[in-house]
Amino acid sequence: MPDDINAFVPGPRVEIEGRQGGPLSGLTFAAKDLFDVAGYPTGGGNPDWARSNPIPTRHAWAVQRLLDAGATLIGKTITDEVSLGIVGENAFYGTPINSRAPDRVPGGSSSGSAAAVAAGLCDTALGTDTGGSVRVPASFCGLYGIRPTHGRLDVSGMMPQAPSSDTTGWFARDSETFAGVSSVMLGEAIPTALPRRLIIACDAFAFADPEVAAALQPMVERLRVLIGDSREEVMAPAGITQWAQAQRTLQPSEAWLTFKDWIDRDNPRFAFSVARNIILGSMIPESERGWAQLVRREARGRMRYLLPEGTILCLPTTPFPAPKRGEPLSVAGAQRGGLLCLCCHGGLTGVPQVSIPGATVDGLPVGLSIVGSRDCDSALIAVARALARSMHEENTSL
Amino acid sequence: MPDDINAFVPGPRVEIEGRQGGPLSGLTFAAKDLFDVAGYPTGGGNPDWARSNPIPTRHAWAVQRLLDAGATLIGKTITDEVSLGIVGENAFYGTPINSRAPDRVPGGSSSGSAAAVAAGLCDTALGTDTGGSVRVPASFCGLYGIRPTHGRLDVSGMMPQAPSSDTTGWFARDSETFAGVSSVMLGEAIPTALPRRLIIACDAFAFADPEVAAALQPMVERLRVLIGDSREEVMAPAGITQWAQAQRTLQPSEAWLTFKDWIDRDNPRFAFSVARNIILGSMIPESERGWAQLVRREARGRMRYLLPEGTILCLPTTPFPAPKRGEPLSVAGAQRGGLLCLCCHGGLTGVPQVSIPGATVDGLPVGLSIVGSRDCDSALIAVARALARSMHEENTSL
Repeated sequence: MPDDINAFVPGPRVEIEGRQGGPLSGLTFAAKDLFDVAGYPTGGGNPDWARSNPIPTRHAWAVQRLLDAGATLIGKTITDEVSLGIVGENAFYGTPINSRAPDRVPGGSSSGSAAAVAAGLCDTALGTDTGGSVRVPASFCGLYGIRPTHGRLDVSGMMPQAPSSDTTGWFARDSETFAGVSSVMLGEAIPTALPRRLIIACDAFAFADPEVAAALQPMVERLRVLIGDSREEVMAPAGITQWAQAQRTLQPSEAWLTFKDWIDRDNPRFAFSVARNIILGSMIPESERGWAQLVRREARGRMRYLLPEGTILCLPTTPFPAPKRGEPLSVAGAQRGGLLCLCCHGGLTGVPQVSIPGATVDGLPVGLSIVGSRDCDSALIAVARALARSMHEENTSL
Repeated sequence: MPDDINAFVPGPRVEIEGRQGGPLSGLTFAAKDLFDVAGYPTGGGNPDWARSNPIPTRHAWAVQRLLDAGATLIGKTITDEVSLGIVGENAFYGTPINSRAPDRVPGGSSSGSAAAVAAGLCDTALGTDTGGSVRVPASFCGLYGIRPTHGRLDVSGMMPQAPSSDTTGWFARDSETFAGVSSVMLGEAIPTALPRRLIIACDAFAFADPEVAAALQPMVERLRVLIGDSREEVMAPAGITQWAQAQRTLQPSEAWLTFKDWIDRDNPRFAFSVARNIILGSMIPESERGWAQLVRREARGRMRYLLPEGTILCLPTTPFPAPKRGEPLSVAGAQRGGLLCLCCHGGLTGVPQVSIPGATVDGLPVGLSIVGSRDCDSALIAVARALARSMHEENTSL
């Protein structure tokens, strides 16, 4: 298979057939190079990670789950270095092509997984999401993507970054495939009944570019109709930026703990931006971590209050569509800050989130996200499917 | 020429014949990959530097000077990345072999130049010294090495790091070659008359490992005999560590200014340790730079007071011999701190310094340094030659 999308890691292509007769038989998938595949190195997007880690002898739980369900693994995909990145540019392996917007970044860190699915090279792909690494590329590449409830799925064989925020996630181009894969991964049927109440997170919509908020409005209106009861409400009363600041304290501190022994031993190579993230993480004082833990506690309480069972919340997945490739760090750093703001509630509170495609700004995809209370992942999948069916019906009835 | 020393940069080997009939005809030299050689990229020890800089069309001043004097250029040598390193390990191009101690680092950042001369691959080699990058490898590899008076030599075509400390330097195995090359580079004859007063920097000797101070003692005694009048004195009354702190403030701040536009544009790859140095440099507040400028002013005054014409000062070049290769960053960082302490006066005050081989600790070379007042470079070369001749006479008379 020619890879002019640059979605896959260099080296011999992985191919492992899924079990015959499973519910996902006939589907193909790819796995971000953070997931162990027995017999192949786990590179983690960095040239010095694999060298110091043994070649795995077992598949990661998520890989095994999809193989057992019948899907065939066709490759390991490029990721931002050690999953520390949000736009999808990798200085060692290059930037996967966003086939929906070829002059734009694909989003990261699950860049190659999103690029492969968007280009039709496979039906679904595994990613990870710590601070937005599935949600952002889903929005930028026009895909369905999920960040499940934190702690719900087994993360064995998945390279950690910041364990209190790390989750497994996956992408698909269409809602039916997405529902099928999600049912397997979550281990439960996707319900037909939908939540009964919708919150529109007005602070998050205000944070997004006005063009993005406007482009998502038709999808929000359709959600209102599907769900019935809806209201506007502030998601983060003390400010999305306060939550983002807390997440930007907790996540890099933990990432430093995850990587510091390796770094001390091997002095690995990194792009400057990645090294800087790690170093700034190493310098965060205990007092700030303590403050951030309190903000996390408060944010979790806020989400419990906002999202009793049967209520979901919607917000723009990203404040803007995919930026251009190759921007200078000063520009990319500001973009990153904005992306992390609209994603921070995930790592901070652990709630599940699904990004739904369907809107564009100047032809560039942007996603609408729905968030539910912990363990209501399947309800979000059900909403995504219902929304797609309703949009399809309108299109066919026109 | 097989390069099992790993002294030279990858790619086509540079070879440019020197002018016929010059004073250095018959000699060969190598140039650190910070010096421009027309028609070849200047790599600076980093895979992303050359890409963003045009291939030079003129030789660096220092390269042209040696070619004009008849020496033949036989290669460009590996350097620590963008000259930010002191032990000589390069994560992209490997660590040149210190043939005097193969399980030890060669010292840096002029690692390949020192390794090439030590292994006999060439007669002399150009390096640069900002914070110790000629002096440290000279000590570790058992070579003569000079950091000339700051500002004396034309630095055209030499990649900058911290311009207020950057100097051109060179290495040789024997004192006669060293004197010949130095005479060409400095543009003056090496005098036969020697300085008349010697200061033994007792604080610097106390800072060195006791074994190093003891190993250097016979060379110091011989210097005393050669020079005549000698006394012990403190070099840095408020502490060598105070001077080192000032240099560690000024140099990284300037290095950040040198590299920040490139970094912002290209997000280059670095070893973690190099990125950390740059990032810490970027974070130094203006108030600390102001304090360091005052310490620099005071240190310059101290050197003028200590070193009137006709007086030189001696100290250990390094506090210890070459450390083992591949130490963890936590260990290497402590070593680096010690090395920078005994080297800081160079960048801080601009005085010339020559490192002289001749002592060993457990078979590992360590150098004795002599320092003079500004522009007394030739007097130091004369002392180095006289010391070598006197040691040779003793050896032949035994």
